[in-house]
Amino acid sequence: MRTIEELQEIAIKTIEQENFLASPKNLYEPIDYAMHQGGKRIRPLLALMASELFSGDIEKAKPVAIAIEVLHNFTLLHDDIMDKSPLRRGKPTVYNKYDTSAAILSGDTMYSLACKYLLRSETKLIPDLMECFTQGIIEVFHGQAYDMEFEERNDVRIEEYIEMIRLKTGALLASALKLGAITALADKKDMDYLYNFGLNIGIAFQLQDDILDCWSNLEDFGKVTGTDIADNKKTFLYLKSLELADKDDKEVLTKYFSSTNFDKKEKEDAIKAIYHKLNLKQIAQQLMQEYNNKAMESLDKIGVDNQRKQNLISFANKLMHRNK
Amino acid sequence: MRTIEELQEIAIKTIEQENFLASPKNLYEPIDYAMHQGGKRIRPLLALMASELFSGDIEKAKPVAIAIEVLHNFTLLHDDIMDKSPLRRGKPTVYNKYDTSAAILSGDTMYSLACKYLLRSETKLIPDLMECFTQGIIEVFHGQAYDMEFEERNDVRIEEYIEMIRLKTGALLASALKLGAITALADKKDMDYLYNFGLNIGIAFQLQDDILDCWSNLEDFGKVTGTDIADNKKTFLYLKSLELADKDDKEVLTKYFSSTNFDKKEKEDAIKAIYHKLNLKQIAQQLMQEYNNKAMESLDKIGVDNQRKQNLISFANKLMHRNK
Repeated sequence: MRTIEELQEIAIKTIEQENFLASPKNLYEPIDYAMHQGGKRIRPLLALMASELFSGDIEKAKPVAIAIEVLHNFTLLHDDIMDKSPLRRGKPTVYNKYDTSAAILSGDTMYSLACKYLLRSETKLIPDLMECFTQGIIEVFHGQAYDMEFEERNDVRIEEYIEMIRLKTGALLASALKLGAITALADKKDMDYLYNFGLNIGIAFQLQDDILDCWSNLEDFGKVTGTDIADNKKTFLYLKSLELADKDDKEVLTKYFSSTNFDKKEKEDAIKAIYHKLNLKQIAQQLMQEYNNKAMESLDKIGVDNQRKQNLISFANKLMHRNK
Repeated sequence: MRTIEELQEIAIKTIEQENFLASPKNLYEPIDYAMHQGGKRIRPLLALMASELFSGDIEKAKPVAIAIEVLHNFTLLHDDIMDKSPLRRGKPTVYNKYDTSAAILSGDTMYSLACKYLLRSETKLIPDLMECFTQGIIEVFHGQAYDMEFEERNDVRIEEYIEMIRLKTGALLASALKLGAITALADKKDMDYLYNFGLNIGIAFQLQDDILDCWSNLEDFGKVTGTDIADNKKTFLYLKSLELADKDDKEVLTKYFSSTNFDKKEKEDAIKAIYHKLNLKQIAQQLMQEYNNKAMESLDKIGVDNQRKQNLISFANKLMHRNK
């Protein structure tokens, strides 16, 4: 069995060696730029790990590994337009480097390219792969739509936030695993357990992202930090702080989250002081741990040797302790 | 055999009775709005006609008929952002009625919904259907990218323009036919002839669109007319006029097409006077006829009774003589 490091290296190489340049140049240059910005290649890695878990024939999982990474990057191109994010992994985002039209059209094309990679799989697997792929991306869109809806609402509940990140982040991680499992001809029940594992590590992953956005820095994180606070994002941290704060702190929180016209530094300091007082970093980490535990319970039920599950266990642990 | 009018009615009803409303509302409302703006439902009709041509079992073609219409409307949502078009079929475009983010995300979701409709087809057909579908939409994106590239270039050749509209308009019409043919289990060679028929009527269709944009009016056409001239679009009319004009007229043409700051009416009148002098409406109509002839030659080669081809022949004739 391959180690997680070996699989990670294969995942990275598989993406890196793909050439996305083609004609028309104005369409494919932004795609090539987006696809070669490095990154952890988590989704391809998950597809390969799922394949390794059930069969070890990872060659068969490579088309879906590329497909899911292209699909993920397509969502980033469009999200960055909607969120007006200037940077990603420390580099200009596509709409910022090129323009909005390029980011829209190159993004659309990436969705098709992702389908094309998927279609390289064995013919008999294609209906199941397409079903999983399509359901996964629809859930991501649902998550993004709820995320946008929440910006306009002042009554977002914590359960709603968790459901949103389950869709926006969890669904694609879970789909990556399931796609790999399909290529390994896994048992239907085992695939469902694995999917559920993916959803829960996805929620834990996003909670960690919220923590890092608040308490990390640009150099480590590769993204501008403090954006959630600056943009009044109703993350778990904010929603929980509203629940726990006394009357005065609640007023401070709602005042600062009612506008983006405050001095960024002043606002960040004021909010973080309240988060600190309420012990929110620890509370968020504890919730992360709960979702990690759920993921582990699900993994436990999969009918293969525990030995084979070690990679996924250490993957989940790494996610919990990452700083970027 | 059903008449073209019967098939058209079925195509329209099939789309009209689909309900696109679901949660999240902010995602599906723009989709429902876009899908229920009426329209000729040409692509579903083509899918049904192809099915009728080979088998007559049009129930099997309905999922692909809906899929191709949803896919087409997805491209319109995104094109309207890129082209800054305020109106479509006389109504506000999605990005104009809602906002750019809604048009991006609802458009993306429509691509996935189109895949979902496709996946309702018989399992054994899905790999071929997905292959056709994916190739078709990639060509549309290529066409749109060339269209954008041409805006920046002053040396676009007429062949390049024809290739662009073959991709941007022809590919999806041809794909609609081929998808219908796949569900009717048509012979591979016949499908290629039918595909080729679709490409050529697509080119004729777009040439007619260019003519209508120039010589029709808002009430008939349902879109703001004269936009090609106002936006310096390098249509066949413009490219051919440059080829035929004398030195003075060429100067007028290039002067007006170098900026969008001219008075719209003054510019339109000046350009149309030159088009009229050069007989461009007739020249464009003649070229349309040539592509129509090519389409007919291709249709002729398909190995089914001529009787069964009558619907496609009258469809092509109608396209040639439409005023909207």
